Amino acid sequence: MPTAVTGPEIDRLIQLLARLPGLGPRSARRAALHLIKKREALMTPLAGALQVAIDRIRVCETCGNIDTRSPCTVCTDARRDPSIIVVVADVADLWALERAGATNGFYHVLGATLSPLDGVGPQDLTIDALVSRAHDPRVAEIVLALNATVDGQTTAHYITDLLGDANVKVTRLAHGVPVGGELDYLDEGTLSAAMRQRTLF
Amino acid sequence: MPTAVTGPEIDRLIQLLARLPGLGPRSARRAALHLIKKREALMTPLAGALQVAIDRIRVCETCGNIDTRSPCTVCTDARRDPSIIVVVADVADLWALERAGATNGFYHVLGATLSPLDGVGPQDLTIDALVSRAHDPRVAEIVLALNATVDGQTTAHYITDLLGDANVKVTRLAHGVPVGGELDYLDEGTLSAAMRQRTLF
Repeated sequence: MPTAVTGPEIDRLIQLLARLPGLGPRSARRAALHLIKKREALMTPLAGALQVAIDRIRVCETCGNIDTRSPCTVCTDARRDPSIIVVVADVADLWALERAGATNGFYHVLGATLSPLDGVGPQDLTIDALVSRAHDPRVAEIVLALNATVDGQTTAHYITDLLGDANVKVTRLAHGVPVGGELDYLDEGTLSAAMRQRTLF
Repeated sequence: MPTAVTGPEIDRLIQLLARLPGLGPRSARRAALHLIKKREALMTPLAGALQVAIDRIRVCETCGNIDTRSPCTVCTDARRDPSIIVVVADVADLWALERAGATNGFYHVLGATLSPLDGVGPQDLTIDALVSRAHDPRVAEIVLALNATVDGQTTAHYITDLLGDANVKVTRLAHGVPVGGELDYLDEGTLSAAMRQRTLF
């Protein structure tokens, strides 16, 4: 770090930027220099946007989404279908599904997936709140939109068991060939699943 | 962008983060989520560090370095050798040379290299100030630590011409094999230069 060259203020900015995902020490230095050079156009607006976020952003008490209000924009959207709750591990997954326009339902953010090796148990996830929401008579389907990983599928099984006495259909995302994907690069599990679940052309 | 999902505040934060070098739209979303999740540990300190930088960081009026004071920490370091001025294109290059402990001299930041194709001419660089500093009787050597690119070398030649009537030796960084570098991957120009400038073992 350029301690002797610049002051501790720049060092501290670089160190904090380096803790963002996707930025290492080198790119954090570049980002800091870029910010300093674009003081009016970028650094001042970014400082302001961060302060607004600090002051106003909160976690939705219904679904776990992040928004400036609680219940969040999604949970208060009257055009959505109250019969569907899409369960995701993380807010980033919710955002991804919304960008895709993949569903018109509501969401439930677990906060993580079960991971015994990492010490993540059911008490660390918002599973109790999900079970409670699933007993709402308007809810007919719980879509488990979880990663197709061991942890994701473990979580899906765990939740499915807990929802046994709720009057809901529990579904999961289809496996198959990604749009634009080349068969040659796909793993055997995906190819087998895509073949089993083939549809009429 | 997740306009309908989150509020405009989060969108704006993401858009500003995406303008940092090294962060695209996707990694800016991840960074924003990370910041929001680490509100106390990261977002608040980062907002503070940015505000400190906005309030306090300035460009050194002597050398062009970025610091919280002017003249900067380097220019006011009495242990440095006043006979050497190392000319760099950018503050990042100054930081890189300082990290390497490559010199005990002072610096001069040009701000860019001459680039006719990009419309960067001599008036855009701090060349006048450099020529003025080179006439200081204490200065004996100007080291041109510029990129070994066409623009960097064009700039080096231009500056060398201008320094003709200053009583200084003008030098440039050596070409050669990078430490840890493999010959097989080096271009012919570097290999030829390394051979010509070979030293006793």
